Amino acid sequence: MKKASKVLITTVPFAERNRLPLEIIDDAGIEYCINPLCRKLKEDELAEMISDFDVVIAGTELITEKVMNRASRLKLISRVGIGLDSIDLLAAERRGIKVSYTPDAPAPAVAELTIGLILSLLRSVHLANVEMHRGEWHRFFGRRIPEVTIGIIGAGRIGGRVLRHLSDFGSPRILVNDIHPDHHLSDELTLEWVGKEEIYREADVITLHLPMTVHTKNLIRREQLMQMKSDALLINTSRGGIINEHDLAEVLKSGYLGGAAIDVFEHEPYGGELTGIDTCLLTSHMGSMSIDCRTRMEIEATEEVVRFLAGQALIGEVPAEEYEVQRQRL
Amino acid sequence: MKKASKVLITTVPFAERNRLPLEIIDDAGIEYCINPLCRKLKEDELAEMISDFDVVIAGTELITEKVMNRASRLKLISRVGIGLDSIDLLAAERRGIKVSYTPDAPAPAVAELTIGLILSLLRSVHLANVEMHRGEWHRFFGRRIPEVTIGIIGAGRIGGRVLRHLSDFGSPRILVNDIHPDHHLSDELTLEWVGKEEIYREADVITLHLPMTVHTKNLIRREQLMQMKSDALLINTSRGGIINEHDLAEVLKSGYLGGAAIDVFEHEPYGGELTGIDTCLLTSHMGSMSIDCRTRMEIEATEEVVRFLAGQALIGEVPAEEYEVQRQRL
Repeated sequence: MKKASKVLITTVPFAERNRLPLEIIDDAGIEYCINPLCRKLKEDELAEMISDFDVVIAGTELITEKVMNRASRLKLISRVGIGLDSIDLLAAERRGIKVSYTPDAPAPAVAELTIGLILSLLRSVHLANVEMHRGEWHRFFGRRIPEVTIGIIGAGRIGGRVLRHLSDFGSPRILVNDIHPDHHLSDELTLEWVGKEEIYREADVITLHLPMTVHTKNLIRREQLMQMKSDALLINTSRGGIINEHDLAEVLKSGYLGGAAIDVFEHEPYGGELTGIDTCLLTSHMGSMSIDCRTRMEIEATEEVVRFLAGQALIGEVPAEEYEVQRQRL
Repeated sequence: MKKASKVLITTVPFAERNRLPLEIIDDAGIEYCINPLCRKLKEDELAEMISDFDVVIAGTELITEKVMNRASRLKLISRVGIGLDSIDLLAAERRGIKVSYTPDAPAPAVAELTIGLILSLLRSVHLANVEMHRGEWHRFFGRRIPEVTIGIIGAGRIGGRVLRHLSDFGSPRILVNDIHPDHHLSDELTLEWVGKEEIYREADVITLHLPMTVHTKNLIRREQLMQMKSDALLINTSRGGIINEHDLAEVLKSGYLGGAAIDVFEHEPYGGELTGIDTCLLTSHMGSMSIDCRTRMEIEATEEVVRFLAGQALIGEVPAEEYEVQRQRL
């Protein structure tokens, strides 16, 4: 008799605020197990755990060739979210393991958090809050969005939304960089397509909305930070490792840059040197963590699993260009 | 020979980020003195200082009858900002002291800060930042603006702008209360004019944009706070004293309400019990503190002084209805 298919849910939290994803999997009669460590798994931990499972509903933990070598039954990785840098797509392809993702679901939540972080940085809300709680009173001066030049690096699903929100606030000048400029955006909105160097030099606020690839890893190092205005504000809600964290910490400590807001880190949970810097507003990879977006991501990833195990076609299968990005690494 | 007119500038900071207001007053050949204490003056301190001056360029310090009794030369109070609760308008009227203000200038900066505070509260940015700086990692769940019902109490210059920003984010339901509903707003935007009690009961986010009057002082006490949803978020960027600070602290400490963001306090500088509560995001009366709005306020208030001392008509003279509001106190 064929053994029943088993699903490992590694992403945490899962179905915490809305039980629907678990109901979907229960209703389909699928056997599952939720990550018992309740935190992002390390490569070895996942390798230990995975041998018995046919499907993984995955977060951002590493799913490398080493992990897949232990995953003899694995046939589908259903990623809750958009980034694919954690998965060795080529190793999966060689083993016939399919990979699906939910690229649209996180965008509204990430874009809104980004606007919140920009407004906090522009008005020093984080600094005032810390000082007030220490019993100090200092009225910080700030700038409004219509007073500053914004630079957006990466104008895809999330960057495009950030762009629209900033336009609603009356941004006077928005500089945008993307390897594949979407010229429809320029029909709709006032913006300038420019090179990254022009953004580093001219923007008061710089926000990153890039995938992690071989081309974006360590994109922003000391050299790029020092090209920015001395009071520039830098926001990263995309992927850790795109900004070199040590270089950012050194530059902020020296008093260069007006501040930064960092939601994503090379190694998470993060507890590195940026935590000692007041001008660095820190959040804990919360971009997609709105109840509606997180639930939508979990439902989409779970429905994909149900479809797969019922022998139906996948809807969110990762497209060929994502494999191409990883092939370029070689 | 007639003694030259002298101007006392009490509001701080003044011309800190843009020298233009001081250049205007210098170019007009007017003698002035800037508040030497560099902080908000107490009633007695201002009374000590004022006797020699013909004009005050004022912040939010108290200008009471007691102060005016010492101000035998005073002919104009030119307020940098919009609130008039600090000035005894009726005492000024009896002495023939004119009062002008700059009601439009602060609105864009206050409205933007309010949106930033709403986004921070909805996503627990302030809590994540404090925890990350303590070396703790917890991914907070949040809600997006299109997931929540917003309640706006006071839909004038600032509340109206907040309303427009929230509509841009796709607020699904906006409840608005104002003693004089501006029905033009409803032509343009989707909103419901309701009573305050309906806002307390039904809104997920409640933001106050009210002047301080006898009707609004202590408007939000324990009773009103307990009518709100248990996870409601409360924002005040208008005037301290409209929310009873002690009641808010008690309610937050008990774990009721999702959080609050408070920028204005009954007594400023503030160092009271809210500073001990992590879920209370605190800023230091920074609503109007964007460089552009603050500069515009200072320029408008200074130009008013120049006009007055040149015998020209005032542009920003406080209208009769503001005197009426204070007469109702009696």
